[in-house]
Amino acid sequence: MIGASFATALRPRFDRISMLEPDDGHAGHALSTGQADERVEAVPEHADAVLLACPSDQIAGWVVRLAAHPGLVLDTGSVKGALVREVRNALGHLPTNWVPCHPIAGLERTGPAVADGDLFRDRKVILTPGPDVAAADRERVADWWRSAGALVEQMDPEEHDQVYARTSHLPHLLAFAYLLGIEEDDLAHTGGGFRDFSRIGGSDPIMWSGVFERNRPALLAALDGFERHLADFRQAIEAGDMDRCRSLIAAARARRSGGSDP
Amino acid sequence: MIGASFATALRPRFDRISMLEPDDGHAGHALSTGQADERVEAVPEHADAVLLACPSDQIAGWVVRLAAHPGLVLDTGSVKGALVREVRNALGHLPTNWVPCHPIAGLERTGPAVADGDLFRDRKVILTPGPDVAAADRERVADWWRSAGALVEQMDPEEHDQVYARTSHLPHLLAFAYLLGIEEDDLAHTGGGFRDFSRIGGSDPIMWSGVFERNRPALLAALDGFERHLADFRQAIEAGDMDRCRSLIAAARARRSGGSDP
Repeated sequence: MIGASFATALRPRFDRISMLEPDDGHAGHALSTGQADERVEAVPEHADAVLLACPSDQIAGWVVRLAAHPGLVLDTGSVKGALVREVRNALGHLPTNWVPCHPIAGLERTGPAVADGDLFRDRKVILTPGPDVAAADRERVADWWRSAGALVEQMDPEEHDQVYARTSHLPHLLAFAYLLGIEEDDLAHTGGGFRDFSRIGGSDPIMWSGVFERNRPALLAALDGFERHLADFRQAIEAGDMDRCRSLIAAARARRSGGSDP
Repeated sequence: MIGASFATALRPRFDRISMLEPDDGHAGHALSTGQADERVEAVPEHADAVLLACPSDQIAGWVVRLAAHPGLVLDTGSVKGALVREVRNALGHLPTNWVPCHPIAGLERTGPAVADGDLFRDRKVILTPGPDVAAADRERVADWWRSAGALVEQMDPEEHDQVYARTSHLPHLLAFAYLLGIEEDDLAHTGGGFRDFSRIGGSDPIMWSGVFERNRPALLAALDGFERHLADFRQAIEAGDMDRCRSLIAAARARRSGGSDP
């Protein structure tokens, strides 16, 4: 889905789009709709860009194998620190042709049939290139994403992982743990609040267990913080300290709006 | 908001709608828009129905004071068990003219300016009447709510509180505790998942600290369950047991849809 959406959005920028796709159904769809011009068995030797839209646990292997490729290599994984460490451990350095990317879009569905050339429009794409990637190459990659309508930003990979542990990975973990306590009969008594709160709890088990594994240190740190705040609430509720409870809720509410406590 | 919405929806069913409203601005709005016919200083002696749409901590006092009123008394509080206990403790019994109601609608905003005659349409209203309320009186109250388009259901008050602790009160508590861990700079990196998950974290501190206080036993029980499930996840993540993590996520996801584990 990510790969075909990128190809669709970037169609005018490239002469030829080749696709390395193990799934025959996906490959057939992409060819018949013109998302790709050809299906290949190996990465073409003279590609300007290689987009890795593969499962996250295969990214590092591809980056290592493509370290001497003349084109620029882009991945789309949602965890960056562990990936950078894995590649550095394998090669002893970071390839200068690799610009790690995290498009903040389209995590819920997979496959080229749900691809969308507007998927990245007005969405953030975070780049976490190593220090030895040439400024002109970083700018080329940023420019491709901007062609797809994205808002490009550069971050340190570890800082990226800490921020997304708090804003994305932890909420998924909490929604999953919350849903495990819901009983069948409870579902007749759910409203809009439940639906919104638990929507991300419908996300894919394989993808998310992978995210949790790869971003373990930052996720556990975010979880530690959450558990401290939850313990504050429990203590206030158990003690019947409603002034404290009100001030915690008011502070939480202010955090959401990014404004000050009203 | 609840009171004016009920009055608007039920307008054709009553000859005269009197309003006991301490706020001059709210009262003026309700009179000028025809939501109410008159503002009164005391509950009219011969009203067929008295709707208590007051703050939750004032409901029990009104139910007790109106125990001998010839009309039917309806409240709209979102916690039922503690309320029933409080009234029973004060009177030694439950008034036969009181039908406790919980409309599952409209918790986010207040005041008659945001009232809506369609607020209750297709929304559940839970009734938790005591055993001595006449069947005909329960039916009259149910019929009024159905006139407003609501889906009426009867439950035991303690069971009601346990179910809503899990489906509504706990998610609010978790969203509040989660938001306390969000840093100012994180807000630039939030997407649709964050927005949906944290939306209920913008709810009113006074109302929700009151709900937490009144539904303390059921809320703490729901919180205990959540913490056990969260500990299961933490253990799986810390141990790198991704099979376990995947199966927990799959079970959570199945809970949401009410279906079986795919």
